[in-house]
Amino acid sequence: MSEDALLLVHTGPGKGKSTSAFGMALRAWNQGWPVGVFQFVKSGRWHPGEEAAFRALGAVHEQTGQGGPVTWESMGAGFTWLPVRPGRDHAEMAAAGWQRVRDLITSGEHRLLVLDEFTYVLNNGWVSLAEALDVLARRACHVVITGRNCPDALAEAADLVTTMEATKHPYQQGIKGQAGIEW
Amino acid sequence: MSEDALLLVHTGPGKGKSTSAFGMALRAWNQGWPVGVFQFVKSGRWHPGEEAAFRALGAVHEQTGQGGPVTWESMGAGFTWLPVRPGRDHAEMAAAGWQRVRDLITSGEHRLLVLDEFTYVLNNGWVSLAEALDVLARRACHVVITGRNCPDALAEAADLVTTMEATKHPYQQGIKGQAGIEW
Repeated sequence: MSEDALLLVHTGPGKGKSTSAFGMALRAWNQGWPVGVFQFVKSGRWHPGEEAAFRALGAVHEQTGQGGPVTWESMGAGFTWLPVRPGRDHAEMAAAGWQRVRDLITSGEHRLLVLDEFTYVLNNGWVSLAEALDVLARRACHVVITGRNCPDALAEAADLVTTMEATKHPYQQGIKGQAGIEW
Repeated sequence: MSEDALLLVHTGPGKGKSTSAFGMALRAWNQGWPVGVFQFVKSGRWHPGEEAAFRALGAVHEQTGQGGPVTWESMGAGFTWLPVRPGRDHAEMAAAGWQRVRDLITSGEHRLLVLDEFTYVLNNGWVSLAEALDVLARRACHVVITGRNCPDALAEAADLVTTMEATKHPYQQGIKGQAGIEW
């Protein structure tokens, strides 16, 4: 295990799995690291607020040299490098996204990659756990994987696993999600 | 309880308490909300990476109007509005910081306030829990409080409590903290 290539997992039913991964990406940006965020989520579940903020930080880097460059891609937006094809289903999109991400994990082009909601991809069998573990074992950068129900073998391979527990949740009390708090 | 003034607590021994609060602040920034972060921590434990990123986002707002204005103050840096006084101790600093923050909680000047490591202040008795709960009950904005060992009465008053559990931690395996990941 390299201290320059930690594998971190944020799992559990509570809030903050993705949010704290993006908070880590802020630190990485400030170190001048090339940061990549790949969201393996449907269109309704991505994080437009964080995306806009990180795109603004990426622009700050381009204009002033402060911080690092930022890559931000969402499956829900079709992953920009994929050919547009109506009717492409989630399994196909996730598998195609993984083909790109697996190259980045081992290339060292970034120093921090966030694979948001990637446990969802694994748990649906869209990418085989064995293949993911094989690629992750050869990682050339820090990788943060978020999502519920982290497979045991992934937790085993990780350097850090944090479990977010929902001790008390406003939805349980009938409070609706809202802009600024939830997205 | 107002849906415009939720009280959120991030507690527990795991990682991500502050980090996910800063991630929430990113969303709030993107909504154009005035955001305030007050760090009740000693100089060695603040978050310079996030601070630099948020200051950059605050500058983006000033220059382009994108996002919202950002206030970021750290006790470890002496809270800029306090007169410089060598030898000021943590208890005195925390109490003086609270005098400012309590006004902001009830004024509605911000739409999201992060009180980072504020449980530490409460658990040390630097601010009385009864007074803090009284002020928080009159809050005019969303407030996120982070820190270990959240007092029961604060959890009771909160709309959302998330507990970060350290399922597996690299320090346990002898990996040292490092730039970009830990700060």
